Amino acid sequence: MEPRKSQEFLDNSLNQVRDLLRKHQVVERMVQAQDSRKHALIESLVHRQNLAELRNRLTRLHPADAAYVLDNLPPDERAIAWEQVRGPRGGEILLELSEGVRRQLIEATPADELLTLLRALDADDLAYLAEDLPAETLNECLQTLTTDERSWLASSMTSAADSVGALMSNVMVTVRDTDTLGQVLEQLRALDELPPHTDKLFVLDRRGLFCGVLPLPSLLRGRPDALVADLMAAEAVAFRADDSARDAAQAFERYDLVSAPVVNERGKLAGRLTVDVMMDYLREKTSDELLKLAGLSHEEGLFTTIWSSARNRWAWLSLNLITAFVASRVIGVFEHSIAQLVALAALMPIVASVGGNTGNQTTALVIRAIAMGQVTAANIARLMRRELGIGIVNGLLLGMVVALFALLFYHNAALAVVIAGAMLLNLLIAAGVGLAVPLTLHRFGRDPALGSSVLLTAATDSMGFLIFLGLATAFLL
Amino acid sequence: MEPRKSQEFLDNSLNQVRDLLRKHQVVERMVQAQDSRKHALIESLVHRQNLAELRNRLTRLHPADAAYVLDNLPPDERAIAWEQVRGPRGGEILLELSEGVRRQLIEATPADELLTLLRALDADDLAYLAEDLPAETLNECLQTLTTDERSWLASSMTSAADSVGALMSNVMVTVRDTDTLGQVLEQLRALDELPPHTDKLFVLDRRGLFCGVLPLPSLLRGRPDALVADLMAAEAVAFRADDSARDAAQAFERYDLVSAPVVNERGKLAGRLTVDVMMDYLREKTSDELLKLAGLSHEEGLFTTIWSSARNRWAWLSLNLITAFVASRVIGVFEHSIAQLVALAALMPIVASVGGNTGNQTTALVIRAIAMGQVTAANIARLMRRELGIGIVNGLLLGMVVALFALLFYHNAALAVVIAGAMLLNLLIAAGVGLAVPLTLHRFGRDPALGSSVLLTAATDSMGFLIFLGLATAFLL
Repeated sequence: MEPRKSQEFLDNSLNQVRDLLRKHQVVERMVQAQDSRKHALIESLVHRQNLAELRNRLTRLHPADAAYVLDNLPPDERAIAWEQVRGPRGGEILLELSEGVRRQLIEATPADELLTLLRALDADDLAYLAEDLPAETLNECLQTLTTDERSWLASSMTSAADSVGALMSNVMVTVRDTDTLGQVLEQLRALDELPPHTDKLFVLDRRGLFCGVLPLPSLLRGRPDALVADLMAAEAVAFRADDSARDAAQAFERYDLVSAPVVNERGKLAGRLTVDVMMDYLREKTSDELLKLAGLSHEEGLFTTIWSSARNRWAWLSLNLITAFVASRVIGVFEHSIAQLVALAALMPIVASVGGNTGNQTTALVIRAIAMGQVTAANIARLMRRELGIGIVNGLLLGMVVALFALLFYHNAALAVVIAGAMLLNLLIAAGVGLAVPLTLHRFGRDPALGSSVLLTAATDSMGFLIFLGLATAFLL
Repeated sequence: MEPRKSQEFLDNSLNQVRDLLRKHQVVERMVQAQDSRKHALIESLVHRQNLAELRNRLTRLHPADAAYVLDNLPPDERAIAWEQVRGPRGGEILLELSEGVRRQLIEATPADELLTLLRALDADDLAYLAEDLPAETLNECLQTLTTDERSWLASSMTSAADSVGALMSNVMVTVRDTDTLGQVLEQLRALDELPPHTDKLFVLDRRGLFCGVLPLPSLLRGRPDALVADLMAAEAVAFRADDSARDAAQAFERYDLVSAPVVNERGKLAGRLTVDVMMDYLREKTSDELLKLAGLSHEEGLFTTIWSSARNRWAWLSLNLITAFVASRVIGVFEHSIAQLVALAALMPIVASVGGNTGNQTTALVIRAIAMGQVTAANIARLMRRELGIGIVNGLLLGMVVALFALLFYHNAALAVVIAGAMLLNLLIAAGVGLAVPLTLHRFGRDPALGSSVLLTAATDSMGFLIFLGLATAFLL
C-alpha cells in the first residue's frame, strides 16, 4: 500500500493504469487478428505480463485510491481493471466506490468470487453494501455471521435510510465503570486492534446500561489504580437510532466529535457513530443538492452511457417542456396584441428572464438555510417580509432600467411604464414562489432542492408573460 | 454547559432566548414611557432580573450552540444577547459564528472588552479571527503572545486562503523516536491536557525532523519499555503548508484521517491539521456552491438587512439584465418576421427555455465533477463526446414533441420542421456552452460555480432566439 494525499498522485495512478490497459488492449487486438500459433503464444505471454503489471499497480494502492481509479475509468476498461484488483481487498474497494459503479461491478462479478470477497468484510460493512447485493449472495453471507451479528445486521437494514441507525456501526469497545484503568489497559491489550476512530471508550454500569464515556487521553494520563467511574464524562453527546442522520452529522460538526454512542430508549448501547461516516454522509447530501437542482439523479457519473444519461434527464425535461408549453399558450392568447405592437415580443423575455434569476437567488438561499437547519416557524414570516422587501427594492430599480431601455429603442413612454410595472410585479411573484416552493417541498418531507428550480421558472415565465402582455393589452391597445 | 445534540434542543434554546428578549423589550418600553421615579425603580429591577436570566440561559449553552442562537436572532436582539453572553467564553463563541454575524458583533464590542475576550484564545484561534479584527486590537493581542507564537501567526496569516497553511494549527504533541512508551506516558501526564483530536503523536528523529506518527492505540497497547521507533508508522499521510486545502480535505475523507502533520520541504514539522477544521472547510465550500450558482455572496444570511441583500444581488442581476437586453435585441432584429407570423413569438421561448435547462444539467454535472477532482485532461474529450451525444438524443426527441405541439396549434408543417431543427441545434449549443463555461472558469483559476449559470442562460437564450427566428425567416417567409 502506498497511501498518498495529492490529486496529482491520484491522476498519475489513473494515467498509469490507463496506459497499462491500453497496452493490454493493443495486444488483445493483435492476438485476435493473428492466427499463427506461434505468434499467439508469444502475444499471450506479453498479454499475461501486462495484466500482472496492471494488477501489481492496482493492488499497491490504498482501497480508496483504487476505488478512485475504478470510478474514473470508462466502463470497458473498468471491467478489466476490476478483474485484476478484486480478490482479498475487493470488498474494501467496493465500499469506497460511487453507487452506480459499485452496482455495475457487483453485477459483473461471478457469484462465488463475490461471496469470497464479501466474507472478508464485517457485519457493519455488509450492511452498507446490502441493498446493492443480489438476494442469494446476501443470504449466503448471512450464514457465516454469528447470531448477534445477524440480528444487528437485520436491525440496521430495516432502519430508515436517513436515520442514525442506518449509519451506525456495531464495532466498539466497552468497559465497566467499576474497572480500574489498569484493568482497562489489560483489556485493550487483549484485543487484536482498536476499532478505527476510537477516541473514547463507552462505559457501562452494573446493569449493562450506558453511563458515560472514557476519553483515551484520560486513560493515558490517569493512574493505573484510578477508577473508570471517577474519570469518565457522564454528560456525553449520545444519539438514538431513529434520530435524523442530518441532525447527527450537524451535531458532529458543532461539537467536533470523532465518535459517539447510539443508545436505545432503555439506555442500552445500540451502536457507534464515527466522524468518517458522518462526513461522507454530509458530503454526499450537499453535493447531491447541486445536481438535484438541475434535475439530475446523483447516480449519473461522468461515464454513465449516453443512452441512460439521456433517460435520466427526461423526467425533468418533460416537466420543463410542459411548463414551456403553458408559457407559450399564455403568449398565444395575446397574439392579437403582439401583431398590433411587435415590440412586445422583443421585450417580454426580459421580464421573464430577470424574474427567473431573482427567484433562483431566493430559492438557493432557502435551500441552504433548510440544509443548515436554520429555518424555523418563527423565522419564516421574517424571511418572507425580507425577500418581498428585496423584491420591491430591486423591482423598482430594475424596472426603471428596463423602462429606459424600452424608451430608448421604442420611443413609447406608455410602453416603458407598462414594462416597469410588469417587472416589479414579476419580481414580487418570483420572491413569493422562490420562498414557497422549497418550503412547501420541505414541509411535505420532499427534498427542497429537487424540482425547485423548474417549478420556479415555470411560474416566473408564465406569470411574466401574462402580466406584461396583460398590462400592455389593457393600457396600450 | 449542557451540550445536546438535536435540532429540537437548538430550536428550544433559540425560542427561550427570544422569549426572554421579548420580556426585556416590553419592560424597556414601559420604562421609557413612564416618568414616575418609583415606577422606574421597580421596572429597572425587573429589567435587570430579565437580563440576568437571559445571561444565565445563554452561558449554560455550549459555545457552538450559543453561536447558533446568535446567528439566528434578528440583528437588534442579537446585539442585546451578545452583550450578555460575551465575557470569558466570548472568544470561543466568535469562532463558531457565521462570517457576517461575527463581523457585526466584533464591530459592536468595545475595544477593551474585545481585547479581554481575545486574550483567552490561543494563537491558532487568533489566526482564524485575524482578518475580521480591527488592526489595533490585533496588534495589542500580538503583544501578549510569545515570539514563537507570533512568528507562527504571521506565517499562518500570510498563507493563501485556500491552502493547508491557513487551516493548520500549531497545537500538537511531539515525541522523540528514541523514547520508550513509558517516557512518552510520563510526558503526556505532565501536560495540562491533550489537544483536541489527538489520535496520534508526531515523532521527531534526533535532528528534530518529522519521521513518523505514533497512534494512541499503539501507545495504549504497547509495553512501557518498548521504543517509539519500533511502534511508530513511518508511512503517514503528511501535508505541505502550500498544498491545496480542498485536496487535503479530500485526503482526510479518503483515508479517514482524524489528524495529520504538516511538514515543510526540509522535513520540519510546521503544524497539524484536524478533521473538524477540514470538515468545516469542505462543508462551507460545498454549500457556498449552491449560492454562487445563483450569484449570491456566501455572506448573506437569513437576517442580512434588505438594503445590503439587495445590493449583494446587483452585480449578478446587472449581468443578467445586459444579457436579457442582448436577447431582446436579437428578437428586435426579427420584428419584421414576427409581424408576418405571430406564432413565432409564442414558440420562441420554448426553444430558449429547454436549452437553458439542459445546459444547466451539464453545468451542474461538470461543477460537481470538478469539485470532486474527477475532471482530468484525459476525461474532457470523452465528456464532451458524451454530452454532445446526449444533446443529439434529447434534441431529436424533444424536437419531435415540440414539432407536434406546433403542428397542433398552428397547423403549419414547415413551422414544425423549423422549430424541431432549432431545438436540436440549441441543445447542442447548450451542451457545448454548459461544458465550456465551468471548465474555462476553472482553467483560469476562477470558481467554476460563480457565474456559470448566467453565462449559460445568456448563450442559450440569445442563440435560441437567433437560430429559431433566423431559420424561420430563411425558410418560412
